[in-house]
Amino acid sequence: MNIDKYPSRLLENAVNEFSKLPGIGRKSALRLVLHLLRQDKEEVNSFGNSLIQLRNEIKHCKVCHNISDSETCQICSNPSRNDSVICVVENIRDVMSVENTHQFNGLYHVLGGIISPMDGIGPAELEIDSLIERINSGQVIEIILALSTTMEGDTTNFYIYRKLKGKEVKISTLARGVSIGDELEYTDEITLGRSLMNRVPFESSLGK
Amino acid sequence: MNIDKYPSRLLENAVNEFSKLPGIGRKSALRLVLHLLRQDKEEVNSFGNSLIQLRNEIKHCKVCHNISDSETCQICSNPSRNDSVICVVENIRDVMSVENTHQFNGLYHVLGGIISPMDGIGPAELEIDSLIERINSGQVIEIILALSTTMEGDTTNFYIYRKLKGKEVKISTLARGVSIGDELEYTDEITLGRSLMNRVPFESSLGK
Ligand SMILES: [Zn+2]
Ligand SMILES: [Zn+2]
Repeated sequence: MNIDKYPSRLLENAVNEFSKLPGIGRKSALRLVLHLLRQDKEEVNSFGNSLIQLRNEIKHCKVCHNISDSETCQICSNPSRNDSVICVVENIRDVMSVENTHQFNGLYHVLGGIISPMDGIGPAELEIDSLIERINSGQVIEIILALSTTMEGDTTNFYIYRKLKGKEVKISTLARGVSIGDELEYTDEITLGRSLMNRVPFESSLGK
Repeated sequence: MNIDKYPSRLLENAVNEFSKLPGIGRKSALRLVLHLLRQDKEEVNSFGNSLIQLRNEIKHCKVCHNISDSETCQICSNPSRNDSVICVVENIRDVMSVENTHQFNGLYHVLGGIISPMDGIGPAELEIDSLIERINSGQVIEIILALSTTMEGDTTNFYIYRKLKGKEVKISTLARGVSIGDELEYTDEITLGRSLMNRVPFESSLGK
């Protein structure tokens, strides 16, 4: 079915909007929109408003840059978390992945990506300076570099490692139970949990 | 990745809402929501509002029951369409499928489904009475039954056929170029266009 004619401009608008989402073509978009048309008004209002509210009210934690409903996130403001260990991750999903292992009780630092010259992402585009500042504040005993085991991840690890050279902080990386080339968010929680427990000093990972 | 902990209630709400949609699991929902978080506020507002507006303002054409932005749809109110032929379809998508063949210049009647006792859908749940009324009004020379070529479609065809027995109206069905068992919306427009052009009197389809 080739869709080029819509019986309603409202319908067409909604289909256009849905098909901007990644992985959703026009046919799927139409199917989703027609599904919503069959739901109660309240349901659709609550769906639409949840997205608008999310985008307008969400904050980024001023400490770790994870998304948050408040100025400081639930993790950073939790007194039972160990604030002397920071797990450095690429994105929000990776925080959720590590949390799901139940193997980590420290804090996080969300870089917002990894160094990728091909995509025009350099250190300045990432939350690296703020990481260094957190470490300079003196509280931190160890950082765990939990980035993807790709070339970009390795580059970013090394960049941070050099930035911290001479500082009194232990730098670990995940034990390479995570297969080389894997993206963290696709790693099952058992593998990831084990890699966290068996984390190794970053220097030893350079030897390989 | 097992997702059971969200860094934000706003995020969790949005993921919950998205994962109510058919075919969207919690992982895809999270991915879509994080995508929206990276978009401009205006974009997300416009997405959310397009859905809310659609659901709150959409109408059903009082003549053919297709969805519409006004009381009477674009097709029914188009004076260049032939109002003596009515193509009877199950749903809105089927109107779009037939329109895309560019082989039909008559009007439609959207039943809102087909008779399916297994799903508790009888004639009373469908827009069959209003179809009979339209035909009784005298304008109509021919109706084309363009329902799915499934058992439920055949049952519905036959039900309408019996209701119209004795009336001065020609009843056609699609030429069975549409494979038996196929749902109309998955039929390519060439096959569907040809089936419309080669439509046959309903009685002749009973002989098989
Ligand atoms: Zn935080
Ligand atoms: Zn109409």
